[in-house]
Amino acid sequence: MPTFRAPVQDTLFVLNDVLGYERYSNLAGFSDASPDVLEAILAEGAKLAENVMHPLNRVGDMEGCVRNDDGSVTTPKGFKEAFDQYREGGWMGLAVPVEHGGQGLPYTVHSAVGEYMSAANMALMMYPGLTQGAMAAILVHGSDEQKATWLPKMVEGAWTGTMNLTEPHCGTDLGLLRSKAVPNGDGSYRISGQKIFISAGEHDMSDNIIHLVLARIEGAPEGVKGISLFIVPKFKLDASGNPGARNAVSCGSIEEKMGIHGNSTCVMNYDEAEGFLIGEANGGLKAMFTMMNEARLGVGLQGLAVSEIAYQNAVAYAKDRIQGRSLTGPKAPDKKADPIIVHPDIRRKLMTMKAFNEAGRALVLWTAINSDVAHRSEDGAERQAADDHMGLMTPVVKGVLTDKGFEHAVMAQQVFGGHGYIEEHGMSQFVRDARIAMIYEGANGVQALDLVGRKLGLNGGRAVQAFFKEVGEFCEANRGDEQMAPYTKALKKGLNDLQAATMWLVQNGMANPDNAGAASTDYMHLFGLVALGYMWGRMAKTAQDKLATGANGSADFYETKLVTGRYFMERVMPETSAHLARLSTGSATMMALAAEAF
Amino acid sequence: MPTFRAPVQDTLFVLNDVLGYERYSNLAGFSDASPDVLEAILAEGAKLAENVMHPLNRVGDMEGCVRNDDGSVTTPKGFKEAFDQYREGGWMGLAVPVEHGGQGLPYTVHSAVGEYMSAANMALMMYPGLTQGAMAAILVHGSDEQKATWLPKMVEGAWTGTMNLTEPHCGTDLGLLRSKAVPNGDGSYRISGQKIFISAGEHDMSDNIIHLVLARIEGAPEGVKGISLFIVPKFKLDASGNPGARNAVSCGSIEEKMGIHGNSTCVMNYDEAEGFLIGEANGGLKAMFTMMNEARLGVGLQGLAVSEIAYQNAVAYAKDRIQGRSLTGPKAPDKKADPIIVHPDIRRKLMTMKAFNEAGRALVLWTAINSDVAHRSEDGAERQAADDHMGLMTPVVKGVLTDKGFEHAVMAQQVFGGHGYIEEHGMSQFVRDARIAMIYEGANGVQALDLVGRKLGLNGGRAVQAFFKEVGEFCEANRGDEQMAPYTKALKKGLNDLQAATMWLVQNGMANPDNAGAASTDYMHLFGLVALGYMWGRMAKTAQDKLATGANGSADFYETKLVTGRYFMERVMPETSAHLARLSTGSATMMALAAEAF
Repeated sequence: MPTFRAPVQDTLFVLNDVLGYERYSNLAGFSDASPDVLEAILAEGAKLAENVMHPLNRVGDMEGCVRNDDGSVTTPKGFKEAFDQYREGGWMGLAVPVEHGGQGLPYTVHSAVGEYMSAANMALMMYPGLTQGAMAAILVHGSDEQKATWLPKMVEGAWTGTMNLTEPHCGTDLGLLRSKAVPNGDGSYRISGQKIFISAGEHDMSDNIIHLVLARIEGAPEGVKGISLFIVPKFKLDASGNPGARNAVSCGSIEEKMGIHGNSTCVMNYDEAEGFLIGEANGGLKAMFTMMNEARLGVGLQGLAVSEIAYQNAVAYAKDRIQGRSLTGPKAPDKKADPIIVHPDIRRKLMTMKAFNEAGRALVLWTAINSDVAHRSEDGAERQAADDHMGLMTPVVKGVLTDKGFEHAVMAQQVFGGHGYIEEHGMSQFVRDARIAMIYEGANGVQALDLVGRKLGLNGGRAVQAFFKEVGEFCEANRGDEQMAPYTKALKKGLNDLQAATMWLVQNGMANPDNAGAASTDYMHLFGLVALGYMWGRMAKTAQDKLATGANGSADFYETKLVTGRYFMERVMPETSAHLARLSTGSATMMALAAEAF
Repeated sequence: MPTFRAPVQDTLFVLNDVLGYERYSNLAGFSDASPDVLEAILAEGAKLAENVMHPLNRVGDMEGCVRNDDGSVTTPKGFKEAFDQYREGGWMGLAVPVEHGGQGLPYTVHSAVGEYMSAANMALMMYPGLTQGAMAAILVHGSDEQKATWLPKMVEGAWTGTMNLTEPHCGTDLGLLRSKAVPNGDGSYRISGQKIFISAGEHDMSDNIIHLVLARIEGAPEGVKGISLFIVPKFKLDASGNPGARNAVSCGSIEEKMGIHGNSTCVMNYDEAEGFLIGEANGGLKAMFTMMNEARLGVGLQGLAVSEIAYQNAVAYAKDRIQGRSLTGPKAPDKKADPIIVHPDIRRKLMTMKAFNEAGRALVLWTAINSDVAHRSEDGAERQAADDHMGLMTPVVKGVLTDKGFEHAVMAQQVFGGHGYIEEHGMSQFVRDARIAMIYEGANGVQALDLVGRKLGLNGGRAVQAFFKEVGEFCEANRGDEQMAPYTKALKKGLNDLQAATMWLVQNGMANPDNAGAASTDYMHLFGLVALGYMWGRMAKTAQDKLATGANGSADFYETKLVTGRYFMERVMPETSAHLARLSTGSATMMALAAEAF
């Protein structure tokens, strides 16, 4: 059975020491989560994740969700009780503004705890996770009345939410969607159509389910310009605002999936269900992106989270399993063989995962802090810069952390040899669960295109230039520091590759957009490496400073950081040149064949 | 539902045109498989794979194998009947010498057909696949009597075979194994112990199961020098050589696995079962490697096979699914959207898989021809060179084709978006099935160590030098050829990287073997890229010659080859520099942390 320990010390290192969490105490909510409180919240979240969520992870995988004949869905044993503890602990509304019943704490804290929860039980955490996305849409685009009607119960966790975008014939290309909305004349609409792949679409964990549904108002323009977003509750509300009559929305079936069995992925049928327009008519895409951006960061976090728990279990196995002898002579001569952690190729796997997880965590938290600044700062320039950063990093966090998260789940499974392929060890579940994160909320190819086709050029490239400047200045500022050389040299080399790739895109992507598409995935990963490398640069700098000024008994911790960061520079960063070389070859060969030639 | 079409034309191109199959007509068996006969055999094998094996692939995944209360195992519906057709078609003994009841045809032909079969139904094909390994051990190490006793029925397929190596506490490190053998005094032994992960260990598809079991004869030395190999039949033979009384070997349970559900992976319990020593006492490791080398090539073939079928289905989906518009303007203006094959990032995936599959097929067939030469040539020098090649390429074929095969199954699944994550489309099965190939018959880390630690230095590096020479001469011979420049330049660059990496290993691996271990996986993949790149060089040369001398109506086929090869050079080969850069950093950082620091 897998185990899990929330990496609290590491989160605190990143927040307090690397990112200077205290510097943000002027932002709303931050003063309520002072470093002491922060530590207490993380410890509490860790306990819930480790002791309540994690023990149900394998149960969820084995039992899955069951659709009953009446269309109701039964979730795995224990899921409802665990979710009860989650909502009673106030985790659902942690970062929701106080005026809507939340605690108004930083989104950063929500993200930090979110990693632990998703690592412990990704499928279970999708129920509250989707609710976060739905709440975000209502918060941003809902009328005051809608906020008052729907949010408090969602913040409580008494009601959960979903996002209904995909239809059988359309996912990425929402312009094709057919679900339709007919006005009732009283401000409400009748929604009809079929949605598929609806996570947490139907289940037994909450008193009501608030579906946010994309549909086309009768007579609306074709394409994405004719899409609107609707609130469609499972149960209509009675006069006092409580769940009353059943709405005409039902779960037609649940999908048999590769993983996340504990989450009910539903085909949802809308048959003139009562719905309420949220935001402007035909402005659904914008509202959808509010949910989506929230969700994309959450999915990136899932990639990191599964990578972390898979890594932890690979480490435990590598220390425990004895097999063969170290190439440099026995390390455990009292035993019949050495633990496999002595073998370089096992180390390579563990170090690769460790170096990624720690930088990935820093990248997520850095982006989360920027989200808080973007939403809460009173300084317009600061807000803009933070918002730029968020927009730029969202596809990188989603695309890179989930691609790598999956890769590392596979790597961790490999450490187990044949035992990794057997379901009872749980490593297969990590791989199967992690796989979806590369697909949903915009497949990673779509993230890459978002980065290259939209985010790069936005506002004349303001966001990307700011990022280059920051990384460049970091390298420059530490240029004279001998001890920092292993980090800054590799980072600078990566940055050069990224800038060259950007220049290539500018020069070749305009003339032929296929060049941009052909470069996109390599560019996104190149970008991710530089962002993660920069996180390592900053973490190394912090660790070095701590060691120089007195490590307070944590010298081992900081020394380990320095080694892990060096590993990242030596073994992971070289990939930047391969990405640059590949993307520079353009689209001509890639696009040369006729479809029939495949 | 997935579909499958055996790539017969491509196999013929590689064998006839690239590798010059006819040149080997002097070898035993080759004259019986003249180009005409070869084509007929491939067509026949393709039919069986497409029409009989493939339709059962998903059935096998869904039903899995069931162990009944009496210890018997029921295979999925239809498996036995399909296997009946396989054995009745004579496929089991295709390459087995005529004197043992086989057809004595080239191993090359067996491999070519094997790809189709494994692509069509990997789990089903493991039953005959393991039998091939068991037969190889008996053929090479068995006494004449043993050959006469066991082989004919196995060649017929009336009996199947297994390989029993792994025990709960030992897989890679067979020196730890505990199963024991006590002499009965009459030449037979009593075998006791527990074996795990035994593929095809118990099932209902054959009249007897011939287990080849590693065990330690009482009083034998510790470690691998005290291991012997035994034949342990499920049913003892009666006086007339037919299955009689049940032997004391039984299936204790079957494993619940991530994939290959159609194959029964058993815990086998030996309780003083009657067994017969094969080969010399304490010489089991050598005999084991005979099975293992055979099996490793077979597993590499599985990697390629799953990559091929996954690719084919991704292509079909990419042509059929409409979503979004081409970045360069609508390509199917009559439809509401373009087929997704117009999108560069989808192309990138398809081209990557296609370019790999075609080179992988060439590499497998080239190695298979070398196997035939090594076993059948009358020229000692030729035999030695071919055997060198086989030894060198075995870990590369196993390690690289299975790592990449899995990666491509994942890539093909990604083309399907959310639909790829749903079991009904079958893409998940390809991923789950392909995953095991990276693990069994020696995890890929062990393959890399075999390459770096054993094969490179063997006979003063004779094998690797011959390979470098051949590739170098190919580049040199085509240096003046303008049209070949895109291929030879990239290949030469890759070869230079590989030679630099080899030099680095020579200089650093001796002094500190951890450097070799730390470099091993990168080195193996670097080696694989050059080997695959060389295959592309030769395929491009052949295609170009064909086009120049009259393509006989196949101009499109050859043009497509040239484009696909160019893609490989542009987009896949750049990885060689990253491998070199990584491995050149050595083991110091990787090994620096104490185990507790993880």
